[in-house]
Amino acid sequence: MSGLTHFDGEGRAVMVDVGGKDITQRRAVAEARVVMQPETLALIRSGGAKKGDVLGVARLAGIMGAKRTADLIPLCHPLALDKVTLDLTPEGDASIRIEATVACTGRTGVEMEALTAASVAALTVYDMCKAVDRSMRIEGLRLLEKEGGRSGRWSAA
Amino acid sequence: MSGLTHFDGEGRAVMVDVGGKDITQRRAVAEARVVMQPETLALIRSGGAKKGDVLGVARLAGIMGAKRTADLIPLCHPLALDKVTLDLTPEGDASIRIEATVACTGRTGVEMEALTAASVAALTVYDMCKAVDRSMRIEGLRLLEKEGGRSGRWSAA
Amino acid sequence: MSGLTHFDGEGRAVMVDVGGKDITQRRAVAEARVVMQPETLALIRSGGAKKGDVLGVARLAGIMGAKRTADLIPLCHPLALDKVTLDLTPEGDASIRIEATVACTGRTGVEMEALTAASVAALTVYDMCKAVDRSMRIEGLRLLEKEGGRSGRWSAA
Amino acid sequence: MSGLTHFDGEGRAVMVDVGGKDITQRRAVAEARVVMQPETLALIRSGGAKKGDVLGVARLAGIMGAKRTADLIPLCHPLALDKVTLDLTPEGDASIRIEATVACTGRTGVEMEALTAASVAALTVYDMCKAVDRSMRIEGLRLLEKEGGRSGRWSAA
Amino acid sequence: MSGLTHFDGEGRAVMVDVGGKDITQRRAVAEARVVMQPETLALIRSGGAKKGDVLGVARLAGIMGAKRTADLIPLCHPLALDKVTLDLTPEGDASIRIEATVACTGRTGVEMEALTAASVAALTVYDMCKAVDRSMRIEGLRLLEKEGGRSGRWSAA
Amino acid sequence: MSGLTHFDGEGRAVMVDVGGKDITQRRAVAEARVVMQPETLALIRSGGAKKGDVLGVARLAGIMGAKRTADLIPLCHPLALDKVTLDLTPEGDASIRIEATVACTGRTGVEMEALTAASVAALTVYDMCKAVDRSMRIEGLRLLEKEGGRSGRWSAA
Repeated sequence: MSGLTHFDGEGRAVMVDVGGKDITQRRAVAEARVVMQPETLALIRSGGAKKGDVLGVARLAGIMGAKRTADLIPLCHPLALDKVTLDLTPEGDASIRIEATVACTGRTGVEMEALTAASVAALTVYDMCKAVDRSMRIEGLRLLEKEGGRSGRWSAA
Repeated sequence: MSGLTHFDGEGRAVMVDVGGKDITQRRAVAEARVVMQPETLALIRSGGAKKGDVLGVARLAGIMGAKRTADLIPLCHPLALDKVTLDLTPEGDASIRIEATVACTGRTGVEMEALTAASVAALTVYDMCKAVDRSMRIEGLRLLEKEGGRSGRWSAA
Repeated sequence: MSGLTHFDGEGRAVMVDVGGKDITQRRAVAEARVVMQPETLALIRSGGAKKGDVLGVARLAGIMGAKRTADLIPLCHPLALDKVTLDLTPEGDASIRIEATVACTGRTGVEMEALTAASVAALTVYDMCKAVDRSMRIEGLRLLEKEGGRSGRWSAA
Repeated sequence: MSGLTHFDGEGRAVMVDVGGKDITQRRAVAEARVVMQPETLALIRSGGAKKGDVLGVARLAGIMGAKRTADLIPLCHPLALDKVTLDLTPEGDASIRIEATVACTGRTGVEMEALTAASVAALTVYDMCKAVDRSMRIEGLRLLEKEGGRSGRWSAA
Repeated sequence: MSGLTHFDGEGRAVMVDVGGKDITQRRAVAEARVVMQPETLALIRSGGAKKGDVLGVARLAGIMGAKRTADLIPLCHPLALDKVTLDLTPEGDASIRIEATVACTGRTGVEMEALTAASVAALTVYDMCKAVDRSMRIEGLRLLEKEGGRSGRWSAA
Repeated sequence: MSGLTHFDGEGRAVMVDVGGKDITQRRAVAEARVVMQPETLALIRSGGAKKGDVLGVARLAGIMGAKRTADLIPLCHPLALDKVTLDLTPEGDASIRIEATVACTGRTGVEMEALTAASVAALTVYDMCKAVDRSMRIEGLRLLEKEGGRSGRWSAA
C-alpha cells in the first residue's frame, strides 16, 4: 500500500498536479441508502406530484450538489462535468436507494462528484422527512464503479 | 404521522415560514462512520503532523461544510451559526467515527448543518484515502440529539 | 425625487448602513411571466410527474436563487430569510406566470430576494424548454407589494 | 416538436450528457430592458463618475452573474467562459437596454450564461434605483442570437 | 499571552461558540496599499468614467468580497453585515491606499470582513493593471481599529 | 505603456476574450509575509499537531481560496486548475513567509489564483492569531514568477 497522494513529502496537504495526466472520458457511479420507518416511506410513495415530490427535490439537490464538489472537498480539482444523473428508488418497505452517475472529459476522476451527489440527495431526503422521522439513517454511501484514466475500470466487490 | 412540512397543500415545495417561531438556542449533534481497510486506518494513524493529517483536513472541511448547508439543501433556511465542532476518532481497527456539533441562536434547528458537517468530513476522509482504498464506505450518518425550539430535546434511541 | 441611496456624496458605491434600522417583519412579492409558443406550454402542461416537471424544477431553482441574492446583487445585504414560496401557473395558452413571496425578520427589505427568486425561476423554465422554443421571452418582472420597515406597505398600481 | 431534453424517459430531471458533443466556439447574445420613470432615467444619466455610476455597477454584476450561472440554473453544465461583455444603454426617455454577449470554447452553448448576465444586470439596476422608483419593470429578456455547436447559428426573428 | 482561541484543548480547530456573547454593534476598519510604478498610477488616474474606472471596479469587488468572508476563512462565523464601505485613494505618485469599513450587529467582530474587503479590492487593482505592471505589491494590510463587544475599542498604534 | 486590457474603448469593464489564445501549460508563483510579534510566532511554532496547527489550517484555506478566485475577482476567467500548493514557513523570529504555486492548462494565466491563494492563507493566519496579536500585518504580497502563454516566462526582479 503506497502513501496518501494528497500530502507532499513533508506531510503538507496539496492539490496534486494533474497537468501531466491525459484527458480521457471519466465516469463514476456511487450509491447510498436512506433507511427510515415504513410509515415514512409510505408517505414518500404517496407523494409524487400531488402531495409533494420528495424524490424529485432530492434528485435535483444531488445534481446541483455534484457541481459544488470542488467547493466542499478541500483538495478536489474543479471540473467541467459532462453529465450528472441520479436515481432514487424505494427499496423494500423502509429504504430509498440512491444511485448517482457523473461523467466528465478531463484529467482527473469524478468519484468525489458522484459520492457528493449521492450524499446531498440523501441529506435532502432527510431534510424533507425529518418532521415525521428524525431517526432516519444514511447507510452504505460508497463508490460502485469508475472508469477512465490510467487506473482504468474498477468495480466494487 | 402528520404530513411533510416542506410541501404546501398542493404538493409544491416551499421554504416554510419560520417568522413566527421563537428565537432560542438550538443545538444538534450528528454522527457518521467511515469504514475502511485496517491498512488504511493504520496509514491515517501514522500520519498526523509528519506524514499528513487526514483527520485535521477532514475536520476543517466539515466545519466549512456546515456553513454551506443552505446552499446545498434546497429548502433549508440560511442561519448564522454560533458554533461548529467536529471530532474524528479512530474506532476499532477499521473505522473512523465522526461527531459534529452545531449551535445557533435562531428560529429553526441546526440538524441539517450537523448532518452536512459530518457528511462533508466523511467525504473528505474518502477523498484523501481513495488512492489506497477505493472500497471505503460511509455508514450510519444520523442525528444523535437536538435541543431548542418548540419540540424541545430529542435523543436517538 | 431624492438621490440614489447606494452611492455616497462622492458618487462611490456603498453598502448602506442599516445598523440603525428597526428589526421588523418584512415581506415582498414579485412576479414575472415567461411567454412562449402554445406548443411549448402544452408540452409543459402534459409533463408533471410523468414526462418531467418543468414547473417543479423551476420552483426549486427560484427558492434556492432567493438564498443567493446577496452573492449576485453587489450592494444587497445578506439576510436570514424566514420564508420563500413560488407559484408557477400556466396563464392563457402561451404564458406561465411566476409569483415569488419572500419574508424575513430584519433590518432591510426583501424586494431583491423576491425579484431574484422570480427571475431565476423564469430563467430555469427557459433553460428546460429552450431545446423546443428558443424564442421564449421573460416579461413583466416587477415588484407587486412590500411591507415592513419605515416605508410601510406598498402595492404596485 | 420534440420532447424536453432535461428529462429522461421516466420524466426525471437530468443533467444531459454532453460528453459526445464537439468542442466548438460558442457564442450567445441576450437582451433585456429596464423600464422606469423618466425622472429615474434622468437621475441615472446625471450620475456617471460624479454622482454614482449605476450602469457601471450593473455591468460588473452582470459579468460576475454570468460566472454563477451553473450555480443558479439546476441543470446547466459548468463552463469555462472565454468572454463576457455587457452593454447598458439608455433608450428613449424611460428605459435602459441591456445586451450581454458570452463566448466559450466547449461542448455546450452559453445561452443561459448570456440570459443570466442580462438578468443580474437588470436586477442590479432595479436595486440601485428602487429607493426612488419601486415600479420599474424588467421586460423583454430574451435570446438574440447564438452560434456554434451542431445547431449552428440562430437569430431571433 | 494566552493561547489560540481557534483550537480546543487537544489542538483541534473549532469554530468557537459565540452563543453566549452579547449582541452589540460592531465595527472594524482595515487598510492596505497597492504599490506600483508611477506610470501605472498615472494610467489609473487618467481613467475614471472615460477610459475605465479601476478604483470603482475594485471598490465593488471589495464590498462583495466582505460578504464572502465566511466562505473563505475556515473558522469565521457567518454574519449579517449592516454596512460595507471602501475608499480607494491615490497616495503620492506610486501607491493606492485602500480603507475598508464594515459594521454589523452581532455576537462577533467584523475584523476579518474588513481585512478581506481590503484584500479583495487590492487584488482587483492588481488584476486590472497587471497587463501593464506585473511587479505591483500589496503592502501593509492591517487592522486600523475595531469597536464593539467585550474587548471594546482598539486602535492600531 | 499600453492601456488597461480590462476595459473596452469606451472605458467599460469587460471580461476579455481569451477564445483565440492557445491552450498552454501555465504556472504562477506568489508570495506574502505575515509580520507579527515574536511571541505570536513562538505560539505558532509550539503548535503543530498538539496545540493547534495554524499553518496547516492556513495552507488548506489558501488551496480552497485559489478555487474561489473567479468568484472574487470580477473580471477573472473561471479556470480548471491542475495544481495548487502552499508553503508557509516561519522566517526570522517575527514573520511567516507564504509561497503559493498554481498551475493550469488553459487559455489564460493563473497569477490571480496564486495571489488569491497567498492572500487567503495570510488572512487565515491573521484570523487564527488575532486574539493574541491584533497588530499583525500582511506585507509584500506579490507575483514571483509566471510562465506559459504568449508572454512567456517572467520573474520578479
